[in-house]
Amino acid sequence: MIKLYSYFRSSSAYRVRIALNMKSIKHEIIPVHLLKDGGQNKKPEYLKKNPMGQVPAIEQDDFFLPQSLAILLYLEEKFPNPALFSKDIRQKSKQVALCELVNSGIQPLQNLKLLGHIRSTFGANDDAINNWCRHWITEGFQAFEKELSKTVGNYSYGDTVTAVDCYLVPQVFNADRFKVDLSTFPTIRRINDNCLQLDAFKQAHPSRQVDAE
Amino acid sequence: MIKLYSYFRSSSAYRVRIALNMKSIKHEIIPVHLLKDGGQNKKPEYLKKNPMGQVPAIEQDDFFLPQSLAILLYLEEKFPNPALFSKDIRQKSKQVALCELVNSGIQPLQNLKLLGHIRSTFGANDDAINNWCRHWITEGFQAFEKELSKTVGNYSYGDTVTAVDCYLVPQVFNADRFKVDLSTFPTIRRINDNCLQLDAFKQAHPSRQVDAE
Repeated sequence: MIKLYSYFRSSSAYRVRIALNMKSIKHEIIPVHLLKDGGQNKKPEYLKKNPMGQVPAIEQDDFFLPQSLAILLYLEEKFPNPALFSKDIRQKSKQVALCELVNSGIQPLQNLKLLGHIRSTFGANDDAINNWCRHWITEGFQAFEKELSKTVGNYSYGDTVTAVDCYLVPQVFNADRFKVDLSTFPTIRRINDNCLQLDAFKQAHPSRQVDAE
Repeated sequence: MIKLYSYFRSSSAYRVRIALNMKSIKHEIIPVHLLKDGGQNKKPEYLKKNPMGQVPAIEQDDFFLPQSLAILLYLEEKFPNPALFSKDIRQKSKQVALCELVNSGIQPLQNLKLLGHIRSTFGANDDAINNWCRHWITEGFQAFEKELSKTVGNYSYGDTVTAVDCYLVPQVFNADRFKVDLSTFPTIRRINDNCLQLDAFKQAHPSRQVDAE
């Protein structure tokens, strides 16, 4: 049985929840609250496993693995069906690059830890924080929308769900939280709508988690 | 012949330069200056290939691939020797996770684009920018140093160079630029010193690039 350390609102954990559901992998979710008690992710017992103190991470016997992309690539090897990456190396590499557009190109610039530091360092208020997040998500989505024009079908990369969709949908969830204007991203909106009709995505949604508030 | 779109000072491009050298892959470097002329990476011809407007990216015939981790995983498949990732899936996944600690956990928080936005949004001066960078690099290195204690040999992950070293050394280069106090990171310093003795790392150094200033 795989354990998933997760926080309902974490878009990075949301990606892994989708992948586990898509592959019908039995798993147990261990909620790690990123705010309560000064952050349960900063408790010594969790930091010992995961010095970065982030979610998601998976655990199986004595194997512990953080970082959503590492986890998705691992799950693909261990549970190959249904595939979330192409078998063709060039196609797979392009899918990894699209995941990274979100993973290193957007999400780190608007995550909880960074926003807290902006508040304390520059005295940013709620408006400034929201503007900051909208700026980076909009910039990233402008690039993502253009990339999609080269790959899109019913989903981000052709007509089957891939890891790219596991990254896109949680980032759209964040975009909605920060009230990003999505009207200029018709492809992103269409793919997001298509994905959200699937059970694997529905059950991974933050509002459906045991630790949802 | 592989083309590498690179900027001498980009730590992300530096990672790929190391990997290409380690694998003795013949390549041509195409310099893309991130500041000159308002950023050569923002010219329409480059944005058409790479909508995020970032380096590194590789190109081979009509195959174009951005994102350092996607590139390193691709090179590993196409040029397997010498290996930069373990053949064991769990070990490889842990190596990917360590690469991501830098790739999504540190570098995006101190890259040129973000720093420019902090200056313009919050009026941050040079001191504030340097403090900002030191904060995130120090926090990330504290976690990286702890992770290394589980894996380290002569290099980050055992006694041969891996992709993890391709990420660590360029991040140490950035740490030096921002005058991070590395005295509390003895393992990171030792690994960095060991790597910098190798020709593949020497030749990839920013100061040795055709576009170095």
